[in-house]
Amino acid sequence: MIQPFDDTYFMRKALQEAEVAFEKGEIPVGAVIVVEDRIIARTHNLTELLNDVTAHAEMQAITSAANFLGGKYLTKCTLYVTLEPCQMCAGALYWSQISKIVYGASDEQRGFKILGTKLHPKTKIIGGVLADEASELMKRFFIEKRNLN
Amino acid sequence: MIQPFDDTYFMRKALQEAEVAFEKGEIPVGAVIVVEDRIIARTHNLTELLNDVTAHAEMQAITSAANFLGGKYLTKCTLYVTLEPCQMCAGALYWSQISKIVYGASDEQRGFKILGTKLHPKTKIIGGVLADEASELMKRFFIEKRNLN
Repeated sequence: MIQPFDDTYFMRKALQEAEVAFEKGEIPVGAVIVVEDRIIARTHNLTELLNDVTAHAEMQAITSAANFLGGKYLTKCTLYVTLEPCQMCAGALYWSQISKIVYGASDEQRGFKILGTKLHPKTKIIGGVLADEASELMKRFFIEKRNLN
Repeated sequence: MIQPFDDTYFMRKALQEAEVAFEKGEIPVGAVIVVEDRIIARTHNLTELLNDVTAHAEMQAITSAANFLGGKYLTKCTLYVTLEPCQMCAGALYWSQISKIVYGASDEQRGFKILGTKLHPKTKIIGGVLADEASELMKRFFIEKRNLN
């Protein structure tokens, strides 16, 4: 049987958000949060526009999903994010008790894995979904940025 | 010479914020951010009111200070917070490149120290300022909460 709503499907939606960030001159990271195959939050990095280091895609997605659900715990939710979360975002995800985190590209320098950030014991992690697409977008962003300066 | 604007002075301001949180039924944590002896952000935990796990006092203080300064880096700022920051807040403080963090009570379970969250190499840390006052407020909060249930 065909399963249209798989991890790749939702990661494509997160990648679309990352592309929106790219167009705005933001480091291109996008996220969606899903409950029972329904997207309840779509966000992208806005640290430049908002002048705010806390405005990562994941942080906004957590706030937005909690607002939609009317409660602060995301125990039945899955986050799809194009880049491995940083310490801050992983720390926020810990508090949210989210069920599942699916990320695209790894962040070998500032990702939560290498830095050892603790997640909630109930949270499942899957990495590497559409990682090449996410990496390509990041690389293209930094090349274009370099050429503009 | 008398130095009225010392770490204790500003921690008292953060404690006043924690008391406001207490009155609202929030876990009583307060924060202020200071530049050249001037308070540019005053915040307290609002996770219950906002239904948002990201609404810790420190996160709001970072956003508020960046808004005041018109830039996202807090390189000349000091954060005073009544409780040791968690992974999320320490992760946000890492991105902010803040100069100095002064906290009150330690958090042996969920504090950034025990969990090993990385701070910016330029950030100085001082702990234990008015720690007893901050701990007392927390204890009183949880005792009252227990008695209400």
